[in-house]
Amino acid sequence: MITVRSLIAGCIVAAALPAHAMDYALIAPDKPVQEWSISNDQLGIHDGPPFKVSLRRLSGGRQEGSALIEIDTGAMQLTVVPTRGMNVLRAQVGALRLGWDSPVSEVVNPAFVNLESRGGLGWLEGFNELVARCGFEWLGHPGEDRGELLTLHGRASYLPAHTVVLSIDERAPHRISLKGVLNEQAFKKVDFRIDTELTTEPGATAFTLHDRLTNQSDQPGEYQVLYHSNFGAPLLEEGARFAIPVREVSPFNARAQQELANWQTFRGPAAGYGETVYNVYPIGDGTGQSLAVLHDKRAQRGIALAFNVKQLPVFSLWKNTDSQTTGYVAGLEPGTSFSYNRSLQRDLGLVPTIEAGGTRDFILHYRLLPSAAAVRTALHDIATLQHGHPPKVRQTPLAQEH
Amino acid sequence: MITVRSLIAGCIVAAALPAHAMDYALIAPDKPVQEWSISNDQLGIHDGPPFKVSLRRLSGGRQEGSALIEIDTGAMQLTVVPTRGMNVLRAQVGALRLGWDSPVSEVVNPAFVNLESRGGLGWLEGFNELVARCGFEWLGHPGEDRGELLTLHGRASYLPAHTVVLSIDERAPHRISLKGVLNEQAFKKVDFRIDTELTTEPGATAFTLHDRLTNQSDQPGEYQVLYHSNFGAPLLEEGARFAIPVREVSPFNARAQQELANWQTFRGPAAGYGETVYNVYPIGDGTGQSLAVLHDKRAQRGIALAFNVKQLPVFSLWKNTDSQTTGYVAGLEPGTSFSYNRSLQRDLGLVPTIEAGGTRDFILHYRLLPSAAAVRTALHDIATLQHGHPPKVRQTPLAQEH
Amino acid sequence: MITVRSLIAGCIVAAALPAHAMDYALIAPDKPVQEWSISNDQLGIHDGPPFKVSLRRLSGGRQEGSALIEIDTGAMQLTVVPTRGMNVLRAQVGALRLGWDSPVSEVVNPAFVNLESRGGLGWLEGFNELVARCGFEWLGHPGEDRGELLTLHGRASYLPAHTVVLSIDERAPHRISLKGVLNEQAFKKVDFRIDTELTTEPGATAFTLHDRLTNQSDQPGEYQVLYHSNFGAPLLEEGARFAIPVREVSPFNARAQQELANWQTFRGPAAGYGETVYNVYPIGDGTGQSLAVLHDKRAQRGIALAFNVKQLPVFSLWKNTDSQTTGYVAGLEPGTSFSYNRSLQRDLGLVPTIEAGGTRDFILHYRLLPSAAAVRTALHDIATLQHGHPPKVRQTPLAQEH
Repeated sequence: MITVRSLIAGCIVAAALPAHAMDYALIAPDKPVQEWSISNDQLGIHDGPPFKVSLRRLSGGRQEGSALIEIDTGAMQLTVVPTRGMNVLRAQVGALRLGWDSPVSEVVNPAFVNLESRGGLGWLEGFNELVARCGFEWLGHPGEDRGELLTLHGRASYLPAHTVVLSIDERAPHRISLKGVLNEQAFKKVDFRIDTELTTEPGATAFTLHDRLTNQSDQPGEYQVLYHSNFGAPLLEEGARFAIPVREVSPFNARAQQELANWQTFRGPAAGYGETVYNVYPIGDGTGQSLAVLHDKRAQRGIALAFNVKQLPVFSLWKNTDSQTTGYVAGLEPGTSFSYNRSLQRDLGLVPTIEAGGTRDFILHYRLLPSAAAVRTALHDIATLQHGHPPKVRQTPLAQEH
Repeated sequence: MITVRSLIAGCIVAAALPAHAMDYALIAPDKPVQEWSISNDQLGIHDGPPFKVSLRRLSGGRQEGSALIEIDTGAMQLTVVPTRGMNVLRAQVGALRLGWDSPVSEVVNPAFVNLESRGGLGWLEGFNELVARCGFEWLGHPGEDRGELLTLHGRASYLPAHTVVLSIDERAPHRISLKGVLNEQAFKKVDFRIDTELTTEPGATAFTLHDRLTNQSDQPGEYQVLYHSNFGAPLLEEGARFAIPVREVSPFNARAQQELANWQTFRGPAAGYGETVYNVYPIGDGTGQSLAVLHDKRAQRGIALAFNVKQLPVFSLWKNTDSQTTGYVAGLEPGTSFSYNRSLQRDLGLVPTIEAGGTRDFILHYRLLPSAAAVRTALHDIATLQHGHPPKVRQTPLAQEH
Repeated sequence: MITVRSLIAGCIVAAALPAHAMDYALIAPDKPVQEWSISNDQLGIHDGPPFKVSLRRLSGGRQEGSALIEIDTGAMQLTVVPTRGMNVLRAQVGALRLGWDSPVSEVVNPAFVNLESRGGLGWLEGFNELVARCGFEWLGHPGEDRGELLTLHGRASYLPAHTVVLSIDERAPHRISLKGVLNEQAFKKVDFRIDTELTTEPGATAFTLHDRLTNQSDQPGEYQVLYHSNFGAPLLEEGARFAIPVREVSPFNARAQQELANWQTFRGPAAGYGETVYNVYPIGDGTGQSLAVLHDKRAQRGIALAFNVKQLPVFSLWKNTDSQTTGYVAGLEPGTSFSYNRSLQRDLGLVPTIEAGGTRDFILHYRLLPSAAAVRTALHDIATLQHGHPPKVRQTPLAQEH
């Protein structure tokens, strides 16, 4: 490996890492963000599926200054946006696209967006990802709370990562890890560091996100986090279904209340539908582990999202089954909180505090269910968690928006 | 031509274009914005006036990241700002400058401006162009409408073009076309695409703008557009005059009302004058074609702006004859709307709707009138349109600002 | 020198300068901002201490697009941020750091900050400098004034310099000058140009700031300026003291009132302390020259800040002795104004006007006091200015914030 390492020496971060990990600094303060790529061939790795990781920059329009990191596991092409909170833009498995078609066609550089515009809805000018982080200082609908306008879903998706490191394990199965660090900082206001990590491996059609929030302040602070995980066609279709082990489910608002009976089934695209949202308290196993599944009508394919209710105690199901053009998309959203303005969530106990110097970990596993058998197994796991705990259906919303 | 093409092969977009057009992608997502130029000599074109097109980047201050495209027709040097809505910064014909002297001396990158600042007047921090696009979601004075703060004159001038293509016709007269595409997009809010095109030709002292607005949404939406076309000295001077075929003219507000009698004549620069604005419903010919002229006191030189009242039914005349330092400038502004806040224009029927998937074309032709004869001819054309339709002068403003 | 000049010819600005000054354009509109450096060796200068000036760019996160200019006098390393109002980020003299530890760890590019966010406190998202300029259109706490939200401390620190020129005197002592030009411009609102200059020389542990504000408008305008000069450990410590010749001192608010008796002594770091601020009218000598000193508990080391009360008639002492993590920092702030919102300072006569075409100079000299003797001498100078003018202590704040 030494020869190969020297070829790409400029990118190697640290010799002090485990001998079996090769680390490459893709983004760092003293290094211009540049086109770059590496492959199993370049690394002399031939004992498994081929893989490749590349970085490219985008130019023109509101994309100017944006960067994309593409991880090709051989079986899946994952695209990460370091300039937008290390969000996952999309995943492609053969002909199957995970993600959705937002009317926002550009990968928008945060420098071009004023989150306070449109009455605090500026976030919508860049929203088009498969996984968009919401938080960490706050999330939810825009509105005043304690004298500040909280903008939709916080800043996380608009924080560019300042340090991005790719690690590839020299040893089979050659785990691929992409770490990116976000700062959410303002003097006297907040001092959060978010260490994000996405891991996958050659041949995989799954990936894991592991975020660690650190409160670097010596004052405790409120925080909120939600993983806005969005899926459109082809997984989403009329008759597609959602499953999760439910402790309690309730409609987000009066509108959602009307369709509560069918909250787990999706409609086809309908212009003008807008959205309905359901608030779920999921059930976890003894360690808090829980699972959500979205699958197509015939239960032939789906996506499984594993998370832990000790980290992310609530779950929003966002049914935005509007037209394909406006946005036909389902959001699977494990979080600390629902999507109400923060001011409405304190009474629900959904605005947690992180102590001075404290850390919080959030681990999510996204996995393609490529077959009827895989869907069946995942649904069985959910049924097992549900077993003995009949779901409580609450008819009315937990909070009332103004 | 093949040899020449291969020299600049990296820039050629498509072989599939008409055989007689050479296309160069100046700005594209996968191509860093770079210094570039091409001339008739490089193209081996020698059957007409020399010409040159070049792109350069600006650095430092609020110009960092801005780009300029300069089209030299041999007779006129046109400067276009792709990073500011494909606005036309200025045109120079020999010693004659078309444009004006704004106190804003930089070509401001939209990334550095918060349009909501200064109570919604942030737009003024970058305003210095000969032609500044206003719209397309809204335009007019800042203020609340339907729960959102609409900022002055919308976003068009603050949308960087994401795709810019230069086309030069191989055949005489070697038409030069510069196309740039703007996106005005926000999930659930707006999905507009604006295809802009500026055309001119070697030897010309005129240019045409052709914008096509496409509502890519499957919902109809309101839109507004106005072409803020601005001329200072030397065309503008004390005694300079404005002409247009008038169906109805009215003062924008009480201030303008006082000078209504002289609405077509310009004062010399006067510190503290501020501005007066007149709202005109122009007359078009059978196809809607209309014409506005601004000429100097002695009617020796002028500018003609042709537009179509079926596309742009109203016209604002902005008489900002303040000091040279603060801004001595006249705005000729064909539009769908006047400059009131959108909330005041619905009742005037000046907030049109564009249907789902619909398109709207806006074509404007700017032409130097280089001689007394040319001025005379243009004024005659206006008189012909006016003939038989005595202008109605309305003494009071159409709307009342708060 | 001719040979050396030709080596770096691309950077030389003007031959028309005094024959003994070498000028290098580090930032200019037609020149990409690039890594660059120059040293006494390169210049063939060997008759004094070695020195070096370098420019580097930062990448990633909110630093993307930021630049740093580092001036190493041999005795002191000064870091200037051209992309943030030519602020001085920090100074290092051997092991002694001048500056402070802000929770804001990045050198934030203004493109990523919305000054209106957090109710007008967006400025805090980038605040971490040794010297942060406040002004020039306004400064002070956020709040409405004359129909506009004035954001904290104005825009100066968020104005990137558009022209930066380094000058090195060929003749001993080889004075080093770094000039940067800021524009604060908006059509119909403001047309300020600020020529900043930082000067030092090889071997020095001092530097001078000389700003010239020019009102390029032909209308008079209000302005305000304050030099937020910030020092943390090690100079700041429990028992550290502040001295200035006082005509009148008063507490900024009720909170500061409680600790008025000890206003010149600093506490150790205390989590949750927040801040106290004292408003001082300093005494100057016959020419207006005045002096402020901050020194450590044992009066072994300190910093002297010389300024002129004819230029900067008031002085704020900001005692932010919170925890090291949240910000343990003292601000020495000569200015035209205190830190109240502008709306509260007109009645105090602290919102000066600058006439059309007028200029105002602000000269500040920062000097390390490296020894007990140096501290003693500076304190003696202050005592001399105070002599015969007993300080007036006003028990109540000059203004009341809402």
